[in-house]
Amino acid sequence: MLEQIAVEKIIRSALEEDLGWGDVTTDSTIPADTEIKGRFIAKEEGVVCGLGVVGTVFRILDETVVFEPLVQEGQKVAKGDIIAHISGKARSILKGERTGLNLLQRMSGIASMTRRFADQAAGTSARIADTRKTAPGLRILDKYAVRMGGGYNHRFNLSDMVLIKDNHIKAAGGITPAVRAAKARLSHAVKIEVEVESLLELDEAIRAGADIVMLDNMSLDMMREATGLAAGRVLLEASGNVALQGERSIRKIAETGVDIISIGALTHSVAAMDISLRFL
Amino acid sequence: MLEQIAVEKIIRSALEEDLGWGDVTTDSTIPADTEIKGRFIAKEEGVVCGLGVVGTVFRILDETVVFEPLVQEGQKVAKGDIIAHISGKARSILKGERTGLNLLQRMSGIASMTRRFADQAAGTSARIADTRKTAPGLRILDKYAVRMGGGYNHRFNLSDMVLIKDNHIKAAGGITPAVRAAKARLSHAVKIEVEVESLLELDEAIRAGADIVMLDNMSLDMMREATGLAAGRVLLEASGNVALQGERSIRKIAETGVDIISIGALTHSVAAMDISLRFL
Amino acid sequence: MLEQIAVEKIIRSALEEDLGWGDVTTDSTIPADTEIKGRFIAKEEGVVCGLGVVGTVFRILDETVVFEPLVQEGQKVAKGDIIAHISGKARSILKGERTGLNLLQRMSGIASMTRRFADQAAGTSARIADTRKTAPGLRILDKYAVRMGGGYNHRFNLSDMVLIKDNHIKAAGGITPAVRAAKARLSHAVKIEVEVESLLELDEAIRAGADIVMLDNMSLDMMREATGLAAGRVLLEASGNVALQGERSIRKIAETGVDIISIGALTHSVAAMDISLRFL
Amino acid sequence: MLEQIAVEKIIRSALEEDLGWGDVTTDSTIPADTEIKGRFIAKEEGVVCGLGVVGTVFRILDETVVFEPLVQEGQKVAKGDIIAHISGKARSILKGERTGLNLLQRMSGIASMTRRFADQAAGTSARIADTRKTAPGLRILDKYAVRMGGGYNHRFNLSDMVLIKDNHIKAAGGITPAVRAAKARLSHAVKIEVEVESLLELDEAIRAGADIVMLDNMSLDMMREATGLAAGRVLLEASGNVALQGERSIRKIAETGVDIISIGALTHSVAAMDISLRFL
Amino acid sequence: MLEQIAVEKIIRSALEEDLGWGDVTTDSTIPADTEIKGRFIAKEEGVVCGLGVVGTVFRILDETVVFEPLVQEGQKVAKGDIIAHISGKARSILKGERTGLNLLQRMSGIASMTRRFADQAAGTSARIADTRKTAPGLRILDKYAVRMGGGYNHRFNLSDMVLIKDNHIKAAGGITPAVRAAKARLSHAVKIEVEVESLLELDEAIRAGADIVMLDNMSLDMMREATGLAAGRVLLEASGNVALQGERSIRKIAETGVDIISIGALTHSVAAMDISLRFL
Amino acid sequence: MLEQIAVEKIIRSALEEDLGWGDVTTDSTIPADTEIKGRFIAKEEGVVCGLGVVGTVFRILDETVVFEPLVQEGQKVAKGDIIAHISGKARSILKGERTGLNLLQRMSGIASMTRRFADQAAGTSARIADTRKTAPGLRILDKYAVRMGGGYNHRFNLSDMVLIKDNHIKAAGGITPAVRAAKARLSHAVKIEVEVESLLELDEAIRAGADIVMLDNMSLDMMREATGLAAGRVLLEASGNVALQGERSIRKIAETGVDIISIGALTHSVAAMDISLRFL
Repeated sequence: MLEQIAVEKIIRSALEEDLGWGDVTTDSTIPADTEIKGRFIAKEEGVVCGLGVVGTVFRILDETVVFEPLVQEGQKVAKGDIIAHISGKARSILKGERTGLNLLQRMSGIASMTRRFADQAAGTSARIADTRKTAPGLRILDKYAVRMGGGYNHRFNLSDMVLIKDNHIKAAGGITPAVRAAKARLSHAVKIEVEVESLLELDEAIRAGADIVMLDNMSLDMMREATGLAAGRVLLEASGNVALQGERSIRKIAETGVDIISIGALTHSVAAMDISLRFL
Repeated sequence: MLEQIAVEKIIRSALEEDLGWGDVTTDSTIPADTEIKGRFIAKEEGVVCGLGVVGTVFRILDETVVFEPLVQEGQKVAKGDIIAHISGKARSILKGERTGLNLLQRMSGIASMTRRFADQAAGTSARIADTRKTAPGLRILDKYAVRMGGGYNHRFNLSDMVLIKDNHIKAAGGITPAVRAAKARLSHAVKIEVEVESLLELDEAIRAGADIVMLDNMSLDMMREATGLAAGRVLLEASGNVALQGERSIRKIAETGVDIISIGALTHSVAAMDISLRFL
Repeated sequence: MLEQIAVEKIIRSALEEDLGWGDVTTDSTIPADTEIKGRFIAKEEGVVCGLGVVGTVFRILDETVVFEPLVQEGQKVAKGDIIAHISGKARSILKGERTGLNLLQRMSGIASMTRRFADQAAGTSARIADTRKTAPGLRILDKYAVRMGGGYNHRFNLSDMVLIKDNHIKAAGGITPAVRAAKARLSHAVKIEVEVESLLELDEAIRAGADIVMLDNMSLDMMREATGLAAGRVLLEASGNVALQGERSIRKIAETGVDIISIGALTHSVAAMDISLRFL
Repeated sequence: MLEQIAVEKIIRSALEEDLGWGDVTTDSTIPADTEIKGRFIAKEEGVVCGLGVVGTVFRILDETVVFEPLVQEGQKVAKGDIIAHISGKARSILKGERTGLNLLQRMSGIASMTRRFADQAAGTSARIADTRKTAPGLRILDKYAVRMGGGYNHRFNLSDMVLIKDNHIKAAGGITPAVRAAKARLSHAVKIEVEVESLLELDEAIRAGADIVMLDNMSLDMMREATGLAAGRVLLEASGNVALQGERSIRKIAETGVDIISIGALTHSVAAMDISLRFL
Repeated sequence: MLEQIAVEKIIRSALEEDLGWGDVTTDSTIPADTEIKGRFIAKEEGVVCGLGVVGTVFRILDETVVFEPLVQEGQKVAKGDIIAHISGKARSILKGERTGLNLLQRMSGIASMTRRFADQAAGTSARIADTRKTAPGLRILDKYAVRMGGGYNHRFNLSDMVLIKDNHIKAAGGITPAVRAAKARLSHAVKIEVEVESLLELDEAIRAGADIVMLDNMSLDMMREATGLAAGRVLLEASGNVALQGERSIRKIAETGVDIISIGALTHSVAAMDISLRFL
Repeated sequence: MLEQIAVEKIIRSALEEDLGWGDVTTDSTIPADTEIKGRFIAKEEGVVCGLGVVGTVFRILDETVVFEPLVQEGQKVAKGDIIAHISGKARSILKGERTGLNLLQRMSGIASMTRRFADQAAGTSARIADTRKTAPGLRILDKYAVRMGGGYNHRFNLSDMVLIKDNHIKAAGGITPAVRAAKARLSHAVKIEVEVESLLELDEAIRAGADIVMLDNMSLDMMREATGLAAGRVLLEASGNVALQGERSIRKIAETGVDIISIGALTHSVAAMDISLRFL
């Protein structure tokens, strides 16, 4: 579920960016027919993501390079595990190395962080979701990595779902008129979410016909009350200041009974997973 | 020193990605002539970077939006400081909000981290440098942010400098033949760097005529010896496992006398600076 | 609700397509400073759509051309009504004439046909909706024209809503497992529609948790039964062979109580509205 | 005679438009290795056009999909005829289905309508020609479909032929100076056509050296006189209000002896040919 | 007669190519507010072409730069003449200098060479024409420069005119069947040219209905005979080995009575006109 | 050392430019299955360059065309030598002929001219270098051809090396402050060159730490003094008015001891090498 046409466009741009008019080092020191073999190795524990993307990087550069993943997309690996084998023309492999690793490390970093949050919420009914806080131009990859890490996607962009926030509410004259305006003009195909700050507002949003309600920075107690009040009539999304541990941990939030916990940091603050390409 | 033509291309792509065919929420709930005012506020201490880029986001969307930075590019701000004012059509501002913040927060995150490293090396002759470990498609912005944070750029891509690593050395039959091959075929306009793992190799690289030598994961003691050996004949670059604190801190590395300390994490593991857009 | 960045891209392509390397007729026969005035006139009754797009065509060609619409976007006009005034450099206006008219006539044709269907359904609770049967590359304009004609948009593309058809049902092993699979893997942000051919299937789709059910080519009687069975638990969409008049007219379908009536012909078989540009 | 490079660009854009970031339905309900077979079936009589284009759609998506046309491009088929077989991965075929059909149905619709006009003119010396009234971005396909339907192309765009209309005549100070200006400045490679409204103007255009004269909305009687007057010295093109039947039918116009009859409706008002993809 | 949309695309690519991620010299040594004035000076005699293009280069970089041409496009200048004044931000002007000059010098070089040939043919009825031997990607500018130098354009590309050469003739079974095949299938809007090597072939081409005949590398005597034989029924084009002086000079060819003399060297072997930008 | 991704982009644009919507001549006169064989023949002595590029032209058009070079890239050939064989579908070969030749002839023209200069400097320590005076959009190919002709590349664009000229010096307040400013702000990865007009300035540039110094239009005597003064501390580049023969010949300049001689004419005034494609 990652469209190849769009991915190839991203990769071609990335290769143009990194290659410039040529790899002056490789082409001046390595003969055209030299072959090498290498291994992608996890240098820390994590969830691998982006293997298909890396495969495409090398296929675009040189169809004769053989890239063989040894693990599944989304699989957890331990420090020292071999993730993939690669072999072929040294020039082609060295030219694609950095672009391939940049993509693989970022995507695996996202998947690994998502898995950490998802594991904390395991056993509850809460789903971990991403946001639109992605690296510009890479949203399709960032959101795919969240899915591979066991998370779920929130809306992709501004056109595929309604999310009514305080400015919209003020301009429309209240939650009810805002929801009504959206329903009156918009496709039946899009869902309507409303961001609320109180239980009163939650009640109004439910009555107005929202499909989803975002509980903005609510306390754990208020979230619990909210799930009681909603009683399954709408999906409830918790948002804001979600941590892996501590007073406002993902676990505690998940146990309030909310349906979705969205976390911007999954994609806006990515720690690249440490993966290296070692040659034999 | 950030080319506008390239920046506009990135922004147009980012806006297309986020807007899809339209902002269904804003256009259905907010009248076309509603105006709003807002402030970009730092929610944590950091170095602001990307103000010109944010200005371009809003100018592309709507030339009548007024975006007024209150701080300089690269300036340090405290938690709570107002970074910029914005005013104009509510629809235009809300449509550009996420794209603008995604860029501003990433760039400020890079600048802030770079500044933290640079401050630790202050007073030494060492410069903090970036790498090619940038987000694909955003290298021009990532490297600009490093400069705004007080760091320096390493080579931009594979075509503007020679960096001879172990594979090149093996294929060419040694450091000396590798450097000679590069010198024989390449432009006088590009510098030649060689990555070494021992002082013996450093010595060979200097004799072969390298301009810069990268000391790969060397101990502090070896680095000190290396600076003595090099005696200013080449620039020395320390690379690998550079931390803000601890046994292998940036400060300790800088005090060995190396000229450049390159840090991949500046751009491969960016923590977005917490900045929000608050409406009045 | 029509993103300008995407629209400009379409217009630039269209102008390149039509202008080639230059308008050889105009540039060789008309002096550079000749000015003309003209009027866009409706040569048949219809709903005007695309005025903003035409304005952009001329703005891209020459910022000094003045294009003044006299009617609102989506307004009904009679034969002979003046839709807009235009004045400025003759060369610029003649170069943009064909591209402007091609867009305006197609969009107005779509809006007019949509309005005709919508008028027939007036007073019922049914909404007229489009499909993905649009002209490749022009979907954003085609779907906007449907909205301007009083219709509603169905999903924009394959990624923003689930629509489970017979092949998906067969592959998944039934309606229930298909809906479950979608719910298990997909975002809470997307709605799930199921296409059914019988009331039994409708019942299964409702129980499985579908948001919308498409009644594929059902008889009027079956549709009426379906609305009774659904009892508001899902939205019902009628699809297939919808005509303006006759046995299976839009009116009759609308009166069965279905919520949405989708019509491929709104965009796959567009009759351009007859509009001409007359010079004074 | 349909350039593959340009066609692939159109198809890639169309697929990006329709696929978004992925087909959420297909990828969540159909296993990656499921194979299907299907048939493209004509649901009404018509002329098939676009088979090569459909083949390219599926080849771009998945090189292993087998698409086998059973009829020739431009061939007439009856209702119920099988046009092509398709087999391969279900995911790939379902993802390309809508884009393939949108192109095939539009192109076949154009070819079918053209064939209907061409058949009416059979036996006369008149050729059916298209205009520049095509769907923006699809001109290359629209004009190819006209050829496949037995029609001929008029100029492709504003740069490959001169067509002097009333505004050009007025600005240049008459037909003769307009033609002279064009001849003086323009390539010998382009033909010169003049639009006239009277026999007097026709006479002037011939004397001025036009290659082709367009008879704008002339009566049948005037057209007959025009052909007598022209006596083969120029090609005569009839234009405006051409119908399949009735007082001003294509047949009657063709029998006046004109050489070309151009019809905007061939491409500006396309009725998609009804073709469906049925799976076995 | 040079489409701005296409020209801007060429210029943006050229600027991206030359600027990379920034002008490191200018931005590090010249303050942002420094202003300069300069003059474009002809350092040799020639015909100036490309002033509008240079103006666009600077307008794209910085709208506040003032570029004022002192001569007309296509005007002859002497060594030392000032062609244009420029003033504004030093950074903007220095960044665009090379791209502007590269375009201006190439275009002026083409115009100057064309003018030299055209001057030699002055007083005869022969026109100087270009070919498709242009720099890939710059055809629109190359052919415009030919026009500005007093030459005429041949066909722009393979789709806007028929040119039947020996391979086409062989494959079609002769000149007559080749011309007939083209006439039978192609638009009345395109002219048909046939390349011949003998008077017999010329005769056949005329009878077959060619519009233009290319006399390939014929002797002056044969060309004279050809013009007698053709007697104005077709346009005659001389091609191959055309020199400014000598046995086969343009003058001598022109005096044979041919209509067009096409010269590949006008665009395939361009000597840049020596023009420099001097700052005050 | 010529990146395929960038080259393919150039070729696709060139083919679109030349093919328009189709080769009307070839497709109407030559059957789809006709095959031909041809030979690329040198019609004058020169250095062949661009064989891989021509191969890519035909591969993009038709993967079944066989293009077999008989000489090496950069090899000198005599008049009459066969450069390559080609065989395959006549339609594909004829469509690519012009684009292929335009690229091959330009690149071979550049390589041949470069070789002529390089041969004159043989035995000295001087290298022939190109400049940024390339055809806009083709720099990557132009500079590659210089390398194939035995020359060396100067900087690729404004971002990969510092070249301080008189305007920068004036604005910065002298050579020393200019070099210092560049060193203070810029990457250690870029070299710094200074353009000087006197030995005094040369001395200052060396002391300021320049890597390379450009001797602008200096006399042979001054150049000799400059090499003595520099004594290997910087690279010296001679620039301006370099001829193959005469008072200021490349040989004489080379014998002054300068390291680099840069020649704009290598790429700004290219004479296409005469190469033709002859069919058997």
